[in-house]
Amino acid sequence: MSQALSGCTYKLLSCPSIVTSACVGGRTEQKGPMHDYFDLTNDDDYFGMETYEQAESFMQKKAIELALDKLRLTSEDIDFMFGGDLLNQCTGTTYGVRDLNIPFLGIYGACSTMAEGLLLSSLMADNGVGNKILAVTSSHFCTAERQYRFPLDYGGQRTPTSQWTATASGALVVSAKGNGPYVRAVTIGRIVDMGVSDANNMGAAMAPAASETISAFFKDTKMTPQDFDFVVTGDLGLVGSRIVTDLLLRDGFDVRENHKDCGKMIFDTESQDVHAGGSGCGCAASMLCGYFVPQLRAGVIKNILFVATGALMSPTINQQGESIPSIAHAVWISSDNGKDETI
Amino acid sequence: MSQALSGCTYKLLSCPSIVTSACVGGRTEQKGPMHDYFDLTNDDDYFGMETYEQAESFMQKKAIELALDKLRLTSEDIDFMFGGDLLNQCTGTTYGVRDLNIPFLGIYGACSTMAEGLLLSSLMADNGVGNKILAVTSSHFCTAERQYRFPLDYGGQRTPTSQWTATASGALVVSAKGNGPYVRAVTIGRIVDMGVSDANNMGAAMAPAASETISAFFKDTKMTPQDFDFVVTGDLGLVGSRIVTDLLLRDGFDVRENHKDCGKMIFDTESQDVHAGGSGCGCAASMLCGYFVPQLRAGVIKNILFVATGALMSPTINQQGESIPSIAHAVWISSDNGKDETI
Repeated sequence: MSQALSGCTYKLLSCPSIVTSACVGGRTEQKGPMHDYFDLTNDDDYFGMETYEQAESFMQKKAIELALDKLRLTSEDIDFMFGGDLLNQCTGTTYGVRDLNIPFLGIYGACSTMAEGLLLSSLMADNGVGNKILAVTSSHFCTAERQYRFPLDYGGQRTPTSQWTATASGALVVSAKGNGPYVRAVTIGRIVDMGVSDANNMGAAMAPAASETISAFFKDTKMTPQDFDFVVTGDLGLVGSRIVTDLLLRDGFDVRENHKDCGKMIFDTESQDVHAGGSGCGCAASMLCGYFVPQLRAGVIKNILFVATGALMSPTINQQGESIPSIAHAVWISSDNGKDETI
Repeated sequence: MSQALSGCTYKLLSCPSIVTSACVGGRTEQKGPMHDYFDLTNDDDYFGMETYEQAESFMQKKAIELALDKLRLTSEDIDFMFGGDLLNQCTGTTYGVRDLNIPFLGIYGACSTMAEGLLLSSLMADNGVGNKILAVTSSHFCTAERQYRFPLDYGGQRTPTSQWTATASGALVVSAKGNGPYVRAVTIGRIVDMGVSDANNMGAAMAPAASETISAFFKDTKMTPQDFDFVVTGDLGLVGSRIVTDLLLRDGFDVRENHKDCGKMIFDTESQDVHAGGSGCGCAASMLCGYFVPQLRAGVIKNILFVATGALMSPTINQQGESIPSIAHAVWISSDNGKDETI
């Protein structure tokens, strides 16, 4: 059962659990500082497939299989799933999961997809709609780069504010029953457009959406940043991370000590040639599924606010001169189900 | 509260209502047999905008405003919304609704989008997650044709099996409280791919998914086609409609007398140059929001099974030689909340 707070925040009173998760990464992720947290990485971004699109679909299927294997589950144990990605018509997902025969609900939230899928899965599980619900997403540098920007062989210079799309996928299963980590509350985000139209500066476009959703969560729940080990944004990168901490400070929320950004975590922005950090649906998804969920399960981390952000534009619309609307959804994940708390 | 039946069908025990709906259409829709059921049509497919993409976004915003106006609601009365469309990155929706400030959850189901949005809105309302939840989608012949097939000025011949993307949008609001029409049960579909790879024959690609979901609904609920005034498919057109009735007959379900297809309804396939009928997210959405929901509200129709179908491929993947995976979701809508029934 879910309790509506003011704004668009819901407390999940039965505290559904993230019972399993897994993530897959590519070559740049393998060379990055988080390589140990991936269940599988490959030094060939084709993953043995003929096209990069097939490789992206392969990653999603593999992430799902690895997540299910950890609990010896099969796809028949999953009631239904939420999935989506950055590719036109979300084909990374639809071709990745078509053989699994799991009832399927497609979602589109750009790089916020894992937060949206986790939020929806958790609301469903909290209300007894489905016992085991899966959420999955992915991104691939080579499919995204040629779709959103330039042909891969073009060799154009990238701007300092540009981010490197992660070649990665993450999958998790939410269940009404489990031993955590627990989903305690969620905030559904609103679309925010502050007029940024530079497709090579996504962090700046998405930071205001992240700030609005994080502020809304704290106001609605009457919690503070200090109730969390980390406030985790999706993939704002170096530029967007500075903006979001500044914007939140203006709203009275100081996250300077405990803000983490998956786009800054997944790559070493000093030594890897990724400019302002990582991006893509797979960035936040792999850091959540590979790092944060296991750390929460082990009790090393007690509470995070997971806030994946998405830029909701297309190259067509951007070329028509439009600015970039963005969105962020927030999910409070805890190692504690809060039965002894009064929050 | 929702009750899980076998398969992936859920009975909605509190029977949420579709409290308002509206639809907008373009020039071909205005000339078609259903023109009187549109709340607004325009003989200029630009709708006064500069680009067709802006026109599609305008239609979505207008459909929402018209639906809200009927109950003197504003966007502030809506708790959150589901929306999506056929355009790359669902920009018909994101640019259409960005000014409304409604908490937003993006979905992607190609032409099944209205069934997915209605299904999710109804499950949420049935469980008290949100009081008023909105679902919206759209399609536009000119944005879809140039994205999926050929430049608009190319003038290539269209095959007899090809369908005409509807220039239309539909929006509706689901509420836990209301006087109907009531959403009584839903079936979440699975991805079905029977190997059809002809992007000019979407009806044939989607019919097996429709058949599987409709069969699943009847088996899970132990209902029959004769319990419904109409079994309404989304946009299978002339070719797909023949296939779905044949496939269902093999499964023991005879819908020959009461099958309706929105792709056959929205245009006159004899006199309008639309080949095998209408298609696009806006086709099923406008027929549902403009025709079926008002007819159910008036009690002229008692029960429909609404089954919108989607082809989940992209031009990129199709050009790489892949077949077309499809999906269909089913929603039972009734003028009766069934309190006196035992089904």
